[in-house]
Amino acid sequence: MSDITKVALDAMGGDHAPYEIVKGAVEAVNATEDIQILLTGKEEILVETLSKFKYPKERIQIVNASEVIETAEPPVMAIRRKKDSSISVAMNLVKRGEADAFISAGSSGAVLVGGQVLVGRIKGVERPPLAPLIPTAKGVSLLIDCGANVDARSSHLVQFAKMGSVYMEHVIGKKNPTVGIVNIGAEEEKGNALVKETFPLLKACKDINFIGSIEARDIPAGVADVVVCEAFVGNVILKLYEGVGSTLIKKIKSSLMASFRSKIGALLVKPTLKATLKDFDATEYGGAPLLGLNGLVVKTHGNATAKEVYNSILQCRTFKEQRINEKIRDILSATEQETKE
Amino acid sequence: MSDITKVALDAMGGDHAPYEIVKGAVEAVNATEDIQILLTGKEEILVETLSKFKYPKERIQIVNASEVIETAEPPVMAIRRKKDSSISVAMNLVKRGEADAFISAGSSGAVLVGGQVLVGRIKGVERPPLAPLIPTAKGVSLLIDCGANVDARSSHLVQFAKMGSVYMEHVIGKKNPTVGIVNIGAEEEKGNALVKETFPLLKACKDINFIGSIEARDIPAGVADVVVCEAFVGNVILKLYEGVGSTLIKKIKSSLMASFRSKIGALLVKPTLKATLKDFDATEYGGAPLLGLNGLVVKTHGNATAKEVYNSILQCRTFKEQRINEKIRDILSATEQETKE
Repeated sequence: MSDITKVALDAMGGDHAPYEIVKGAVEAVNATEDIQILLTGKEEILVETLSKFKYPKERIQIVNASEVIETAEPPVMAIRRKKDSSISVAMNLVKRGEADAFISAGSSGAVLVGGQVLVGRIKGVERPPLAPLIPTAKGVSLLIDCGANVDARSSHLVQFAKMGSVYMEHVIGKKNPTVGIVNIGAEEEKGNALVKETFPLLKACKDINFIGSIEARDIPAGVADVVVCEAFVGNVILKLYEGVGSTLIKKIKSSLMASFRSKIGALLVKPTLKATLKDFDATEYGGAPLLGLNGLVVKTHGNATAKEVYNSILQCRTFKEQRINEKIRDILSATEQETKE
Repeated sequence: MSDITKVALDAMGGDHAPYEIVKGAVEAVNATEDIQILLTGKEEILVETLSKFKYPKERIQIVNASEVIETAEPPVMAIRRKKDSSISVAMNLVKRGEADAFISAGSSGAVLVGGQVLVGRIKGVERPPLAPLIPTAKGVSLLIDCGANVDARSSHLVQFAKMGSVYMEHVIGKKNPTVGIVNIGAEEEKGNALVKETFPLLKACKDINFIGSIEARDIPAGVADVVVCEAFVGNVILKLYEGVGSTLIKKIKSSLMASFRSKIGALLVKPTLKATLKDFDATEYGGAPLLGLNGLVVKTHGNATAKEVYNSILQCRTFKEQRINEKIRDILSATEQETKE
């Protein structure tokens, strides 16, 4: 295994592509020596964008891709038809082992579909979950799954708990991370059919630190490091996080403009308030991994800037250094062993 | 039909019982002439509490109930065994037609179970939903269902949409309320099995103002007046609303105490900030109706004070005056007709 982490980067995806994407790549190769970037997208545009920056030329390579998948396109069709899109070309680099990881700020649907169809699942993984980090009072928690595949089975959720634990411990650095399942009450007998079926399976897992059911109310407080749920519920949680936060912030801002007294106060508290609110913005933690694939696939937020791209690239390096996929293979096959014994 | 609204009020339930509950009742009968309260609970305690207030004696009546259901008790068992509890006695008053409505700040589980077992459903109602009001940027929306019965069917969700529309229009006063179904994307083909099955049924309803799928992100913005979902998802939404709000508020408060500059500012913005945050606190809109029963059942928040009890009592009066249950019967049977034709 080479010590260099090779990242295939979709240079055409996202609101600020290609400039911010390319800038993030340049900052990453300038900051560290063990990263190489394969930029996929329209060659002439990328040559021109890259010409604006200084960086070690041999560490960023352009791989031409003549098509772009738009966010509004139906993802399955887009992946099937646009074989020369920046997403498909980059994912095929991962598939062929020419890159370790893939990052895109483009169409979520295409990334999710492409991850499964092009990159492919690790043997034994039933369903690859999308697992964003969400801000909490204690730091961050991993919300797993927020992907596109709804109507999950209990065996999927057990795998999510295991893969999430590996990621939280070895990429985020949280020792022996706690795992909770989202439920409508803390008692074991509560829940819908899926949760009731999954609960005893998680309880029986020796290789995770399962703390039981958690209520949605306690997620922002940071009650569990790994928050397990099926994708529909995960999607509701992720988006409501954003929605409640942004509506509340708007309300606070407009209320502070309502009186002379509060206007003066607002001037004084503005910098602090801004930093706090940013800190609690789920979109700030945009590098969500799609776990369980043959290579790392990271979906960053559509409005990602260079900083987020840079952070996602470093995340890929940790993922490779920590041999996360080997650890995922180990934890999943260990369970199979247990079941067979 | 009498013009007086008779409310059976559980005087023993909630964190501030019996004092705040009794106080709310006293304020209601002092404010309006067409309300009568039947207070259920331990007679000697209630006689003593009532003696502290001035009010028209004939309009508050004590109905002795020797037992109290604690919030930690398993609800089915509690309703079955404690036949002389303040909840059971009050619900039986509604069942026998001696009261029009029931209000409790006590055990949610017992209220939900008791509503179905003791008060009973309106003929044709498959499942009674619990429908709290949640704050939005535009005012309030009705979140239906947040009850205890999970794993709903599409026919339940259609009834929720209809009952919620009636309530929003005639109790809250929102003309031709918009109805949205919670989904993981705005497109019609998205969703889990339940949502996909329900979507065309809602689209076909002529008697509601269906606007399609809504994402959780848009709920706080007030994109739909009636937010339809099954109870598990509704519970997650309601509790995450509380959780994100309270964590964010704590973070803001502690950040404002971090520097001298922001401390001074904090003093100036405090009153405005407090009012805004209170305005956006889901627990402030605590009088959630359990719809579709033979009589109105209202669950107020566990920490309800006199003001919330007072508001819930007035809500019961509107519910009766507007003949909500007749309207629910009409809208549900109109649909049955359509289906049969």
